[in-house]
Amino acid sequence: MGRQRSSLGGLLRQVHVSGPLSRAVLAERMGVNRSTILALTAELAGVGLVREEPPSGVSGAGRPSLVVCPESERFWVLAFDVAVDRLVAARVGLGGPVLDRREVPRSRAGVDLDTVVRDLVAMGRELVGAAPGRCVGVGASYCGMIRPGDGMVRYGPELGWVDQAFGTELRKALDLGVPVVVGNEAHLGALAEFARGAGAGCPDLIYLHGDVGVGGGILVGGRLMGGESGYGCEVGHMLVNPSVSARPCLCGSRGCLEAETGEYALLDAAGGGGSVASVVRAAVAGEVWAGRAVAEIGDWLGIGVANLINLFNPGVVIFGGMLRDVYAVAAPQVGTRIERHAMPVSRERARLRLSELGWDAALIGAADLGFGGLLSDPVGALS
Amino acid sequence: MGRQRSSLGGLLRQVHVSGPLSRAVLAERMGVNRSTILALTAELAGVGLVREEPPSGVSGAGRPSLVVCPESERFWVLAFDVAVDRLVAARVGLGGPVLDRREVPRSRAGVDLDTVVRDLVAMGRELVGAAPGRCVGVGASYCGMIRPGDGMVRYGPELGWVDQAFGTELRKALDLGVPVVVGNEAHLGALAEFARGAGAGCPDLIYLHGDVGVGGGILVGGRLMGGESGYGCEVGHMLVNPSVSARPCLCGSRGCLEAETGEYALLDAAGGGGSVASVVRAAVAGEVWAGRAVAEIGDWLGIGVANLINLFNPGVVIFGGMLRDVYAVAAPQVGTRIERHAMPVSRERARLRLSELGWDAALIGAADLGFGGLLSDPVGALS
Repeated sequence: MGRQRSSLGGLLRQVHVSGPLSRAVLAERMGVNRSTILALTAELAGVGLVREEPPSGVSGAGRPSLVVCPESERFWVLAFDVAVDRLVAARVGLGGPVLDRREVPRSRAGVDLDTVVRDLVAMGRELVGAAPGRCVGVGASYCGMIRPGDGMVRYGPELGWVDQAFGTELRKALDLGVPVVVGNEAHLGALAEFARGAGAGCPDLIYLHGDVGVGGGILVGGRLMGGESGYGCEVGHMLVNPSVSARPCLCGSRGCLEAETGEYALLDAAGGGGSVASVVRAAVAGEVWAGRAVAEIGDWLGIGVANLINLFNPGVVIFGGMLRDVYAVAAPQVGTRIERHAMPVSRERARLRLSELGWDAALIGAADLGFGGLLSDPVGALS
Repeated sequence: MGRQRSSLGGLLRQVHVSGPLSRAVLAERMGVNRSTILALTAELAGVGLVREEPPSGVSGAGRPSLVVCPESERFWVLAFDVAVDRLVAARVGLGGPVLDRREVPRSRAGVDLDTVVRDLVAMGRELVGAAPGRCVGVGASYCGMIRPGDGMVRYGPELGWVDQAFGTELRKALDLGVPVVVGNEAHLGALAEFARGAGAGCPDLIYLHGDVGVGGGILVGGRLMGGESGYGCEVGHMLVNPSVSARPCLCGSRGCLEAETGEYALLDAAGGGGSVASVVRAAVAGEVWAGRAVAEIGDWLGIGVANLINLFNPGVVIFGGMLRDVYAVAAPQVGTRIERHAMPVSRERARLRLSELGWDAALIGAADLGFGGLLSDPVGALS
């Protein structure tokens, strides 16, 4: 039974991540024979999770072999993203398509737990509304340190949260009768880029997410590195500048990577006003003041990345959030620091990549969290 | 067959790491029943790897239950440690006892590959000599970055080695007909402290080894974190001091953790002469100049440790090599930096410990490397 359950989950995960696949490809990827695939597909089709159909875009003579497709409209999750400047909610179908979404800027009314949960639930209710199909889970991303198990926000300085029972309150208020799982935004971004983005096929992966803060998600051997209690990967508070003139950090210290490379640092280096986008645009357009600001941030970013390369020997480092824009311009500064500080042996196989999922990386990762129960026991989760 | 082989290896590993154990304890640890333990013990005893005997130190009425003991004199490995200042060779028995050892200071004749291999082989031959029992493997520790698989030293600045075929040459020159496996000294120290030392029972572990350089061994979920190609854990070249006045590093950069906390840094901070031991002794004795030097090194060490706690959320950080002595005196400086820079949530469960295995940590880890083949397939390895 256990083996059958995990095989069902394995097949469903394949089509969830990769989309429609032929039986032959599934058999090869899963290392089983085609008759096993046939049996597993029949069982999943029996509960409505997949269907078989001719591949799209195939023409010509002969009958094309069928592909196994996830039933995206019939089974979906609610995914939430509590970012520093906005709240996002989406209905995401099996297989990953965003079926519907809502987004509101950071509430004027405040960013306390009650307000955030109320705003999320309002969007969630709208999305659930008269939507066809079945909600099989809820996943939420939060810009802070999350306790595994119950989704408690232990520390989220951007919104001023300490020990707030986010997961529990969201589950109660939604009252959908499905599990609610919460993760850190950069952890989820890392998992999403590994499954569907710039880190596909690369199990030793570092994802850096920048906004006001800088978060990190680090995969070691294809698994998120949690550490003793699930709070690993806090790259943003790595001290890169121990000088007394270092920029202050929201955490109360100075010279943390996020203090020197986050949004406030870039705007400060650019002389004050504007937005990250406007400074980066000006830098691209050749404005000297803006180029200098991005280069300064890129220099500190390069120190951080060099340190991470020495520590983790990653196959890929992915720049997400605002760091995507910063790196696109400041690649030379980052490269110089890596060359100077990262061991040649450690960096020889490290590729540097821009996020492919962009600002949706955490949301997509949150959706995958929501699908966790279904993917580990497809038939059991529906009964 | 596969299951039986791994159970045999599992039982042998238990008594190798923990020493003599009763059948009841073995059954509990391995999660199998006592009749399985009986059968496995009989098979291992049949090839001479273990024996059963009354526990030592037991007296009183009744027949004590027997314990399963590793046959330490009958099966042993050669373990080597190529450290910055000395070469060590030892004959280490199943179960971990050092049966015999040799040590020479760093050769006056040079530290090129040929000289080092010649010196190691000379000591190894002496140890093998007329020793009873059987050599089942060779493990070697080297103070540099080691390519997994063939034991090539990719980078070892302390001895000036780049891409030296250490593992291959050592195997050829020893010509013992057993595998020769090479690992990085701090990686092996981490594994040894996890198996038998200050990190026992703690699968998220950081071991820091200091001499001229500073090496790191990091376990994530009980496994050494290798990264994309096995070169992870290079904590020594984490940039902690980006200032232009930072101390130069053997790697060609400046301000690396090892440049600011290694032997040269301590002696430099202490005004030049002496040894690490003499400076630490003077600091303990209350000499102001020495106390100031150790505190300065401890301050940089604290920055490095705080960064590692943020990144890895470890259960334990272990100070080994000369950092053991430094930390014993500079704990206040390290603690202050951790409090200032490590997230409270990340540090709340991180214990700081002195190495229990001392300067032998890498040697003991090397011996365990040598036992790897026997422990994964005890009967197969002997046939």
